[in-house]
Formats: sequence, C-alpha cells, structure tokens
Amino acid sequence: MYQTLREKSAAILEATGPYRRVGHAIDIFLIVLILSNVVAIVLESEAKIAKAYKLEFFYFEMISVAIFAVEYLLRLWCCVDKFDYRTLEISEWKKRVKYVFSPLAIIDLVAILPTILMAFITFDLRFLRVIRLLRIFKLTRYSRAMQLLLAAFKEESSSLLAAFFIMNVVLIMASCGIYLLEHDIQPDKFGSIPKAMWWAMATLTTVGYGDVVPITPLGQLFGGVITLLSMGMVAIPTGLLASSFANQLRKRREVFNEAILHALVDGEVDRNERAHLDALRTELGLSHIEANQAIKMMTSQRVSTLYCRHCGKKL
Amino acid sequence: MYQTLREKSAAILEATGPYRRVGHAIDIFLIVLILSNVVAIVLESEAKIAKAYKLEFFYFEMISVAIFAVEYLLRLWCCVDKFDYRTLEISEWKKRVKYVFSPLAIIDLVAILPTILMAFITFDLRFLRVIRLLRIFKLTRYSRAMQLLLAAFKEESSSLLAAFFIMNVVLIMASCGIYLLEHDIQPDKFGSIPKAMWWAMATLTTVGYGDVVPITPLGQLFGGVITLLSMGMVAIPTGLLASSFANQLRKRREVFNEAILHALVDGEVDRNERAHLDALRTELGLSHIEANQAIKMMTSQRVSTLYCRHCGKKL
Amino acid sequence: MYQTLREKSAAILEATGPYRRVGHAIDIFLIVLILSNVVAIVLESEAKIAKAYKLEFFYFEMISVAIFAVEYLLRLWCCVDKFDYRTLEISEWKKRVKYVFSPLAIIDLVAILPTILMAFITFDLRFLRVIRLLRIFKLTRYSRAMQLLLAAFKEESSSLLAAFFIMNVVLIMASCGIYLLEHDIQPDKFGSIPKAMWWAMATLTTVGYGDVVPITPLGQLFGGVITLLSMGMVAIPTGLLASSFANQLRKRREVFNEAILHALVDGEVDRNERAHLDALRTELGLSHIEANQAIKMMTSQRVSTLYCRHCGKKL
Amino acid sequence: MYQTLREKSAAILEATGPYRRVGHAIDIFLIVLILSNVVAIVLESEAKIAKAYKLEFFYFEMISVAIFAVEYLLRLWCCVDKFDYRTLEISEWKKRVKYVFSPLAIIDLVAILPTILMAFITFDLRFLRVIRLLRIFKLTRYSRAMQLLLAAFKEESSSLLAAFFIMNVVLIMASCGIYLLEHDIQPDKFGSIPKAMWWAMATLTTVGYGDVVPITPLGQLFGGVITLLSMGMVAIPTGLLASSFANQLRKRREVFNEAILHALVDGEVDRNERAHLDALRTELGLSHIEANQAIKMMTSQRVSTLYCRHCGKKL
Repeated sequence: MYQTLREKSAAILEATGPYRRVGHAIDIFLIVLILSNVVAIVLESEAKIAKAYKLEFFYFEMISVAIFAVEYLLRLWCCVDKFDYRTLEISEWKKRVKYVFSPLAIIDLVAILPTILMAFITFDLRFLRVIRLLRIFKLTRYSRAMQLLLAAFKEESSSLLAAFFIMNVVLIMASCGIYLLEHDIQPDKFGSIPKAMWWAMATLTTVGYGDVVPITPLGQLFGGVITLLSMGMVAIPTGLLASSFANQLRKRREVFNEAILHALVDGEVDRNERAHLDALRTELGLSHIEANQAIKMMTSQRVSTLYCRHCGKKL
Repeated sequence: MYQTLREKSAAILEATGPYRRVGHAIDIFLIVLILSNVVAIVLESEAKIAKAYKLEFFYFEMISVAIFAVEYLLRLWCCVDKFDYRTLEISEWKKRVKYVFSPLAIIDLVAILPTILMAFITFDLRFLRVIRLLRIFKLTRYSRAMQLLLAAFKEESSSLLAAFFIMNVVLIMASCGIYLLEHDIQPDKFGSIPKAMWWAMATLTTVGYGDVVPITPLGQLFGGVITLLSMGMVAIPTGLLASSFANQLRKRREVFNEAILHALVDGEVDRNERAHLDALRTELGLSHIEANQAIKMMTSQRVSTLYCRHCGKKL
Repeated sequence: MYQTLREKSAAILEATGPYRRVGHAIDIFLIVLILSNVVAIVLESEAKIAKAYKLEFFYFEMISVAIFAVEYLLRLWCCVDKFDYRTLEISEWKKRVKYVFSPLAIIDLVAILPTILMAFITFDLRFLRVIRLLRIFKLTRYSRAMQLLLAAFKEESSSLLAAFFIMNVVLIMASCGIYLLEHDIQPDKFGSIPKAMWWAMATLTTVGYGDVVPITPLGQLFGGVITLLSMGMVAIPTGLLASSFANQLRKRREVFNEAILHALVDGEVDRNERAHLDALRTELGLSHIEANQAIKMMTSQRVSTLYCRHCGKKL
Repeated sequence: MYQTLREKSAAILEATGPYRRVGHAIDIFLIVLILSNVVAIVLESEAKIAKAYKLEFFYFEMISVAIFAVEYLLRLWCCVDKFDYRTLEISEWKKRVKYVFSPLAIIDLVAILPTILMAFITFDLRFLRVIRLLRIFKLTRYSRAMQLLLAAFKEESSSLLAAFFIMNVVLIMASCGIYLLEHDIQPDKFGSIPKAMWWAMATLTTVGYGDVVPITPLGQLFGGVITLLSMGMVAIPTGLLASSFANQLRKRREVFNEAILHALVDGEVDRNERAHLDALRTELGLSHIEANQAIKMMTSQRVSTLYCRHCGKKL
C-alpha cells in the first residue's frame, strides 16, 4: 500500500495505516518540543535567567529550529501523498504550492522564520525573539476539540460580528458620554474620546481596573448606567456561544442517530455496523454512555411504532 | 417595471431588481462615509489633532452633512414608491409623514441636525459636536444580524425587564446595607445611599473598580455576600439571552424544515424549490452546511418512512 | 356575583370580573406610591436634602404609611373572599390567620412596621429609617415575569446549592493557599484566613477590586490559578440558569402544544378553542408569533402524518 | 439479611435497609462535625482567637480526629460488605486494598493525617494546621447534586480542555504583546513575560485588579483589544457548561420518559410502577411537577395515538 519512501513518510506524518504508532510517537515528541520552546522563550524574557543560561538557550533554539525546519521540508516534500491531496488531479508542483499556502504550512513557516531572520538582521532582536512565541500555534494541528470549538465560532460568526458591532456602538456612545461629563474635571484621564475609551472598554467588559473612574455625581450616574449595560455586553456573546454549542451538540447527535437508523434498516445493529458506529462516535466526540443509550432507544422505538397502512405489517 | 424617475430612485435606494448593483455600491459608499465620520469626530475630540487639521475636519464635515442631507431628502421624496409603502392605500403625503416618523428616518435626521443647528446656535459647541456621533446609528439599516439580535432582545423583553427589576431591588438593598455599615467610617464614600450605589453598582455587575471598598470587618462580610449575589445578577440576563438565542435558532430551523417538507410533497426537491429554499436560508441566517444536512436528512426520512418495505406502497 | 361590600372589595383588590379596571387603577396608584417611597427614602439618606425638605419627607411618609396601613387592613378584612381562599372549608378566622402568615402579607406588614415603631422607640432612628426600604418588596405582587424567574431559581435550587457548595470549598481553599503564601509579607492584608477571604471572594466572583493583591511571585502564580478558577465559578451558575430557563421555555411550549393537540381532536381550532389558547398563551408568556406558528405547524402535521394500520383511514 | 456485626455496620454506614434512620443520623452528625472543624481551623488562623482559646481548639481537634480515625477504621473494616463490593469475586484483603485507594477513602485519610503527623514533626506547624482544611472534601460523600455537576464537567472535559488551551494561547500572546509595548516604560511591572502574565491573567478573566495597568497609548490600545478578547474567554466555558447542563437534563428526561413508556406497555401506570418511577425521579434529580407532567402527557399521547378513531382498533 505504501511503497515509495515518500508515501511511507506521508503515512508516518499523518499517523495512518501500519505507521500509526510511529506517527503518534513523532506527534508527541513534537508537542513536547513546542511546549518546551514556549517555556524557554517565556523564561528567556526574564533578564537574569537569560544571562545565566545564555548558551543553553542558544543551543536549544538552534536544535529546535533545525528540527522544525526538517519537519517543514519533510511535510513539503511528501505533501503530494497526503490523504486529501492524493486524489486531486493536479500536478505535483501545484499540490506543493497549494500546500505552502495552507494555514498549517504557514504556521509551520512562521515558527522557523524569525530565528533565520535573526541571523541576517540585527535591527530589533527583542521583537524577533518574542515573535518566536507564535510557534505555539503549531499545536493547532493536534487538537481536534479545538477545531470543533473553532467550527462553533465560525458558524455563529455573523451573529458574533453583530454583537461586536453593537459592542462598538455602545463603546463609542459610552466614551462620548463620559467625555462630555468628566472632560473638565479630569482632563488628564478623560481629555478626549480616545482617552475615555480606555475607561469605557474596561467597564463594558466588566474588567474594571479602577485606574480611571468618574468622580462627578453625573459622571458616576452615567458610569452606573454603563456598568449595567456591561452585563448585557457580556451576556450577548456568552448567550450566542452557549446556543451555538448546544446546536453543534444536537447536530452531532442527529448525524449519529441518522447512522443508527441506517444500521437499523435490517432490524438490528450487527458487529460491523457497531464498529462503524463506534468510529463515528469517536469522530463526533460523543461519550460511550450517550451513544449506547441512543442505540438502545432507537432500536426499541423502531420495533414498537411503525406499521404499514396498506398491509398492516411491521416496517 | 420601474418607469418614473422616482420609482427608479426608490429601487436604487432599496437595491432591488435591476438596480441591485448600483444600490449596493451606494450602500457601501454610505457605510464607509459613516465610519469615516465617526473616526473623524472621535479624533477631533483630541485637542491637538483638532487644532492641526481644523480646516480639513470642517470641509469633511460640510461635505458629509451635504451628502447625508441629499440622502435624507431623496429618501423622503421617493419613500412613496418603497416596497412596503407602495401597496398602502393612503395619500402620498400621509406616506411621507408616516416615513418621517419611522425610526430609520429619525436616525437619518439626527445625523444632520446638529451640524445645521451649529450654524445658528453658538451656545455649547462641544456638546453639539459630540452629539454628531449619533450618526453611527445610521448603520442599523445595513446590519441584518443586528436586527435578528434585537429581535431576540425584544422577544425576551418581559423576562429581561423582570431581571432588571430584581437587579434594582438587590442594588437598593446592597446600597442600603453598606450605607448602614460603612457610613460612619468612610463618610466621604458611603455618606448616603446614592453615594453607596456607586459601589453597589460596580460590585453587582462584577466590574469592581476598587476606588470605593468597605474596610470594616462587618462591611467586608456584607460586601462578600454582595459579590456572591453579583454572580447571580450576571447569570440571569446571560441565561435568559442564551435560552432566547437557542429558541430563535430552533424556530428558524423549524420554519426551514417546514419549507423543506412543503417542497418534498411531490417526493423530491426540484430546481425552483431549491432556489426558494436557498433564499429562505439566507433570510433565516442559517449556514449552507446546516441547510444541506437538513434537506438531506428530511429527504431520506421521507423516503424511508413513506414506503412500506413489505408491500412497497406509499404510506 | 359580587354582592356584599367585602366581596366587592376583594374583587377590586384582585382586579377580577367587572372590577378589573378599578383594580388596575388602584394597582398602578400603589406601584407609583411604592416607587416614590423608595426614591424618597434614598434621597433622605443624603444629609443636605434631608435637612432642606424635612417637613415634606415627614408628611409624605405619614401619608404613605397611612395608605399602606389602610391597604393592609382592607386586604386582611376581605382576604376571606379571595379567589383561592373562597373555596377553602375553614372558618373565617383561620383564613385570616393563614393570610397574615402568607409571604405577601408579611411583606405588607414589614412596609408599615418601622414607621410605627419609630413613634415609640427612639433608639436607632437611622436604621429604622433605612429598613423602610424593604417596602420595595411590595412590588413582587405585581410582577408576573419575576414570579416566573423565581420559579426557575426554585426548580434549579438543588443544583444551584451544589454550585454554591463548590464555590465555598474553592473559596476556603483559595483563602487558605493565599494566606500561607502572603501571610508573612502582607500581614495586614492576608494576616488570617478570614482576612484572606476578602481577596478570594473578590477574585472568584471576578469582581477584582484590587485593594488587596498578592505581591510575591508564588502568591501571584497561585492568584493566577485562582483567577482561572473564577471563570469556572461564574460559568456554573450561569450555565445552570441558562439550561433551566431553556427548560422552562420548552415546558411552557409543550403545555401549549398539548392544548393545541386537545383542540385539534375534532380536526380544527374553532373560535372558542382559539380564545382558550390565547388565554393560555398569555399565562405562559409566549409570543403571538410563536403561538400562531405552533398552531399552524401542528395542524398541518396532524393532517399529513397519521393513518390507521387496520382501516387505512386518516386519523 | 444483615446478620454479622460487620454486615450491620456496613448497612449503617451506607444507610440502607432497616438501618436507614440510624445511618442518616450518623451522616448528619459527621457533616456537622466536618463543618465545625472547617470553621474552627479558619478562626484559629486569626492569631488573637488562637491565643485566647488555645486549649479549646486543641481538645476539639483531638476529639474530631479521634472520631474521624474511628470512622476511617470502621469503613475500612466493613468495606468488604459494602453494596458494590459484596458481589465482587476477590479476596477480602484485595477488597480492602481496592477500598484504601478509592478517592473517598483517600480523602478520609487526608483528613486525619496532618494532625497525626504534627505529633511527630515539628517542622512547619502552620502549614500542617492549614492543610487540615482539606477535610472539607469529606463532604463530597454526602452531596448528590455535586456529583451530578462533576459528571457534567467530566462529560464536557475534552471541550473544556480545548477552551483551556485556547485560553493559554491567548494568555501567552497577550503577555508577550504587552511586554513588548510596556517593557521600557514600566520595567518593574512588565519587565518580563512571566511578570506581564499577572496583568494578562487578571484581564482575560475579567477580574481586573488594576494594580498593574498599561499606560502608553499603544499599550492601552492593545490592552483594550485584550479586554474585548476576555469576553470571549469568559463566554467559552460558560457556553460549554450551559450546553452541557442542558444536555444532561435532556438525557435524564429521556431516561425517565423511556421508563414511563416501559410502564405504559400495559396501558396504564399501576402502583408498583409509580413507586419505581418515583425512585428513578429522585435518582435523576427531576422535580415532582416535571415528572407528573411527563407521565400525564405520555399517557394521554399513548391513548390518543394508539387507537384509530374510525375503526377503534389499537394501532
């Protein structure tokens, strides 16, 4: 099945077929490496630690980037044999170009670029050092649940954008109101609408730092109204996401029930169908108990309710 | 279909029929203009910027208001031929009066009024300048998702009002309690119930500025209880909106499913019905994937339950 | 129907039958009076205002309490003929005793008691004055939506109690941890576990005053973990209420659908049934649109789906 | 049924069979003792109180630990006859080992260990004293609702972990951004990424202490964006839990409805079935009203759909 070296590499990187175990081991190694990198970069920002372990940080960075670079080139080389690219009827080079501009490949590139740039540019080292933290996004590849979360965000995106728009309108109104009321008494804090926005933002998101606060009675009355509005501002995205998550869950359940119905056409769930349902269950992220209950319930319903009105037999 | 100039103008402003493209271009131009206006007014509130670009701001404002005024008069002139006014059996002038007092027309008027007033009144220029920010509400016309959000708010309005009422009762009780406990020790901060309300409001909405804080042990005990209550205060509107959004989504899905059922009366979804379903899908704000899944699922259910597997007849 | 004066009074106070209008007018008068009282008491706590309008406040209070007292006595007198007491087979005096100890009657008594006490006791006037604010609870009688909210709270009470219990465990653990870590450096702020609770409470409820804050690196690390936990603490009650509200809504819809099914037994919804459904709709707090849609949908479903397997006829 | 002393003890500790009352009395005694212990330890951390009541605290602690130790040994002795261990086909000693490593037994051990250790070690008394607070977890045994809450957490654990992961990515990005922007102006507060995390954590969880705050315009702009993101961070776990709680509720209802359907096979719910349903209702944590409504509704549906109105036969 996987004959050439390139096909084997692709299978290992995707952890499919007989290379499942090797692939998973490599995945875990990379995850640990990414996390160690993040910890190292965070610690390196502390001046004392950076000085004390200068060489260690340097070697660790070099080795990490080398590994990430090898990974990047390897993926680029064998992307042609990836599961979802294999059946595409375009030339190998077009596949490679397509891969290079895919989100995951861009993230992989961003993970190695800053260090390579640092060798050439000496302009703003600190910025480049910190930007290496972006390699944390390499973890996206490994989190299925996060992909489900992002799907929920995407689905509700138009409503969330509307919520964001409302938030902005309220934000501008709040800044403008507090600017009018507190402008003269606290010119250093509410001297212009952009300055007043800092207070409005901290208030509307219920963060409430307290470094900037209205002090006139009218300003506090207005501020009180804004704190009340803040509850609505927080409630809208939360409500939208809660409703969206519930909807996602319902749809996944429905897909699963549909599969059960399909398996029940012949009256019972046999062993093959059971294995198929189990694979689907894992993919949809449903729990064992829930799946079993659904199968049990639909089986009993199937048996008890449907009769033909012509011949009177059980369906 | 659109013969007179007035009818054509109405069609352009509503972006319907053959004038869809022109209408959309004008919409986008107006949206950009509104946003630029908001940015300009916000920046103008910064004294330095206002001084440096005084003339530019003035010309931009004049041109903007001129455009908005033309838009207002145009809409007023051809509102008679609007889609939802055309069939009304009242005289043209009554339609115009009706239009003038519609929310969107009032928003349009508010957008130009302050600048016109500024030419005559010299009384409080800053207030008038800032009040021009209200023209951000002109954007309401263009956001469908926001209209859906507002619908959810409206539907749950009686429950939200009840939540607001409970909030007020708790607010008054909290202010009154902290006033009794901290009145003597911090007379400048908790000297009266209205003053104590500032603390109560910041606490109950979980904003928590920290500029005013109880310091006596008893006051802190009471404050602790109020912080606990604040979680409930935040939970109520959030819970209500979450439940309301979920309900809205469910109802939109039901309307869509009903339409699918209707299209499936003859056993399949033909091209016309598909186009109709797609239009409905857009209007209801459902995603492509969800709609296709619903159609697929209902078609298969229809097929699997509508024929007997024994006698093969339709049920 | 309402013959004696007492029966008439009961009907007026309950705003039923022919006395609906008069009853509602009295309700509105009392609501306005209660709200004015609350405003007056809040303002009176401001020393300047209290001094300037001493006499006005005194007369307003006297008149208000007189009216509330008359209301209380009137309700006590004619509670025997209340709708839900009329059919009870107990003596008139037992009904009165039962009424006196009902929540609404206790609230009514609490509204007048402090002022009456003030005439006799001269001990702590300020406390008694503020306690008069409890008369705001008299408004409970008039808010149906609030009663629905309270029902949701009551239904979810066992889960909310469990959430409250978890909150307390986390609170104690957080206080105890921060006490161990910050005890030596900030003895005035984290000198004992009860003191540390003030910080833990402000943090776990995401209020975050900032008057007390860990300053050691270890304390801040621990504090960071607690802020993360705070999101869970806020999420639990919100999630519970959201789920509970959604459940309430669903149940109300089901009751309504059941009523529609009942009305559809003869195949259509006639005028009487329509009126009955409309009354039920108002009671359940469902919107017009939702109710109509449910009726339409169930009517069409009824027609299209059910056939007898014996005779093959439509059900 | 319960013959040996060990069997009787097990029955008492589990409050089953004829020993229900005695078992519940012991439960309540232990709950009160645990709560008193917690209160005592919290108060003892206050130096003044600890000094004043030194002896009382000591005796109370000794007696408490003695009782907890007896309880622990008793449970260990008769765990062999526990309801869920009785039918296990392993030797008595294996059961005991299995019990010792069960979560509840570990909690019980942790409750007595610190005090026993204190007799031997004199190293860090304060730490050991405070660690005794862990005995609050002994309450877990008695709270069914909390076990349901924990089940909801467990079920949604993969999504919550994903949310936690996203939170961490955003946290690191926020710390790194604010570090770059505020590093030079406030080196004591944003001098390194770990230091900047304190601000990022307080902001992203909407706690917002305000002890550390960006002051440069660019830093405040970035801070404003982070406050906006904080709303999303709070919304994700809340939305997940809301959806999960709703799902749990739905599943419990479905289990209950399934049981009703089962009981309705013979057309009605008889007394035995009623008792069985009631036990199930308690176990599932459904309210009386809800259960009755479900039974009533399913009975009427069963009746109305199971007979043809034309031929009168059962469907």
